[in-house]
Amino acid sequence: MRAEIIAVGSEMLTPDRVDTNSLFITERLNEIGVEVIAKTIAADDREVLAGLLRLALTRADVIVFTGGLGPTADDVTREAVAETLGVPLDEDPATIERLEQRFARRGLKMPVINRRQALVLRGAEVIANDKGTAPGVLFEREGRLIALLPGPPREMKPMFEGLVRRRLARFAGGVGVFRRVLKTTGRPESQIEEVVQPIYARWASAPTPIETTILATPGQIELHLAVRAEDAERARVVLDAATDEIAAALGPTLFARDNRRLEEIVGELLRERALWIATAESCTGGLLASRLTDVPGSSDYVERGVVCYSDRAKTELLGVPEEMIREHGAVSEPVGLAMARGIRERARTDLGVGISGIAGPAGGTPAKPVGTVVVALAWAGGGRVRTLWFPGDREQVKFHASQAALDMVRRHLIDA
Amino acid sequence: MRAEIIAVGSEMLTPDRVDTNSLFITERLNEIGVEVIAKTIAADDREVLAGLLRLALTRADVIVFTGGLGPTADDVTREAVAETLGVPLDEDPATIERLEQRFARRGLKMPVINRRQALVLRGAEVIANDKGTAPGVLFEREGRLIALLPGPPREMKPMFEGLVRRRLARFAGGVGVFRRVLKTTGRPESQIEEVVQPIYARWASAPTPIETTILATPGQIELHLAVRAEDAERARVVLDAATDEIAAALGPTLFARDNRRLEEIVGELLRERALWIATAESCTGGLLASRLTDVPGSSDYVERGVVCYSDRAKTELLGVPEEMIREHGAVSEPVGLAMARGIRERARTDLGVGISGIAGPAGGTPAKPVGTVVVALAWAGGGRVRTLWFPGDREQVKFHASQAALDMVRRHLIDA
Repeated sequence: MRAEIIAVGSEMLTPDRVDTNSLFITERLNEIGVEVIAKTIAADDREVLAGLLRLALTRADVIVFTGGLGPTADDVTREAVAETLGVPLDEDPATIERLEQRFARRGLKMPVINRRQALVLRGAEVIANDKGTAPGVLFEREGRLIALLPGPPREMKPMFEGLVRRRLARFAGGVGVFRRVLKTTGRPESQIEEVVQPIYARWASAPTPIETTILATPGQIELHLAVRAEDAERARVVLDAATDEIAAALGPTLFARDNRRLEEIVGELLRERALWIATAESCTGGLLASRLTDVPGSSDYVERGVVCYSDRAKTELLGVPEEMIREHGAVSEPVGLAMARGIRERARTDLGVGISGIAGPAGGTPAKPVGTVVVALAWAGGGRVRTLWFPGDREQVKFHASQAALDMVRRHLIDA
Repeated sequence: MRAEIIAVGSEMLTPDRVDTNSLFITERLNEIGVEVIAKTIAADDREVLAGLLRLALTRADVIVFTGGLGPTADDVTREAVAETLGVPLDEDPATIERLEQRFARRGLKMPVINRRQALVLRGAEVIANDKGTAPGVLFEREGRLIALLPGPPREMKPMFEGLVRRRLARFAGGVGVFRRVLKTTGRPESQIEEVVQPIYARWASAPTPIETTILATPGQIELHLAVRAEDAERARVVLDAATDEIAAALGPTLFARDNRRLEEIVGELLRERALWIATAESCTGGLLASRLTDVPGSSDYVERGVVCYSDRAKTELLGVPEEMIREHGAVSEPVGLAMARGIRERARTDLGVGISGIAGPAGGTPAKPVGTVVVALAWAGGGRVRTLWFPGDREQVKFHASQAALDMVRRHLIDA
């Protein structure tokens, strides 16, 4: 069974925009055994969309549009599809009601132009959008399924994960490709590669072969595994065994067996052990605290954080001695450790984290170049501190540093 | 003049691969006045490619293929294009010679399969590939230009920068597309639309028409303007006048005339006025401080921040009275304002920001549902506080709240 994805939006045809929706949709389609033969980013232009749909109808079983369902005049996906299929658009009363309620909750009256978003292909299945205004639409014709989904990922994804995937799976009914993402941090790609390559080679010729890809992102290396299987249960067994093998080879470098983020893993460990944490950040400027508190329920283990950007704040908020800063510099192991100890004592938490570094672009010296970061952890009766160097621009250094701090907490909690 | 880009390669249809060639090609085409109306990633499949080429021939002046020119059987771009156009493929003697030399330099004899790479459309212009084996090909038919370029960016890019761009520029004959991005915050898309629509309508029929797109992202709405002009200077004059018109209509809702981020705008205002700022965050968990400190040089105006996730931290770090929290709740205007005042006094800065809210998914009540956020600002002798409600999940509420706080600072600094 073959699919085409058509992402609509002139703004995505500019030189600096990447379409990420189609990656997500491709993964989900692969899982239910649907192969993607082409994906197009198309302008908000009726003729362009009509041409693509006509072509797709000649060769694809599933055609997924995303985007171009907004309320404004430049959003033409609905009209282009309706015209090409020769199907009228009707106003969906349930959608009108949902939209009116949505605006009412914010104390607003629904603007007239938003009524356009309630127009759906006659005979189509309407999928409510819990995160936004435009509903999704599924339309079946002559053995082909056409889906119209909103463009914003935060609206499209939950819709897809819910009803759309189930409907498509029923429609497709075949052998699926199942994937798993394992994550590591703290070691370079080449080292990870050396460890996993012999395992990968064995997997390629196994009875149920596993396809593998390594994806390096700043501060994190992901191992993507994929198997073809008739059902999720069979795939799960194979992928579990493969994950165990990788975990044994990589040890604590592997932090997630299931695509979870490092802050989620750390949060779970803190929750399991009923520990409280507090953070003292300089160069990361609050990013560590922000990542920790991105996780729902983090108020159960994050007590507080301070961003001590000035030296005065380090002294006032954390009790770091002025003469220590003068003698060693704000970016030094003694100061990093004093920050971790200072926040732990003042917040009366189990753990305290300290980060101090030079995020750049200015502020580097030959001895402490841009990218130098001190990461420290304090606990009852102990502490550790490391000086690291990270490549990249300011935001990358900040991310790397927050990642190293989270990983230091994780390793401490699992005694690694 | 309109173009389509077709990137060929089944491997680029997996969930974790992004096509970057098309971004590069789009930028180069725009600069010489060619608009990209669609870009597709297509499988290595003759029928799929033939269909796309036939469609593109009905509507595009320039059709750029990248990839699928390798020596192996799964590389079918050459054959698919030749078949669709009804043009035979001839072996190009100059390419054969170049390939033989290339292999000879590495002490190798050219494998027979590489001869396929010397097949070019009869009558086409052949562009030598200095970085690899497959040559590029330019073929003109009935006023349309078809380019076949290799897929690896390190081969395609130099080829494009060299001969291909010059040939395309001659073909396109000169007028370029120039873009500008304006940004607003604090008002919903439909309201912005109502204000700018009459202006857009006027622009569409102006002597130098301006094309416009509205792009809504969480907490921010972007207005993308594009004009066609013979040179950058002429474009600048038109876009400056257009920007002035939008700025007058939208007033302080418009925060950036030039694609800068809100934290950069706020940073610049603080720097110009030589003011210091400190932040006190609850639900945003450090995101506001992190965004402020994403800007290079922010240590010149960010003094400190605190993340007071627990009530105890609010009292200890900011002096918010316990009984105030008991009486009004942590998410309340009195507490928000006390946080802003508390951090301002303790940090001895010019401005203090306080944020307290319910990021969810848990913690909401009928009176204060998830998404309720109090944002407050304190300055010498004054302060203001607002209660807002934001849609979306935890991370979206955090972002919205940090955006609202930044905007409150911005409006205070420009007296809006």
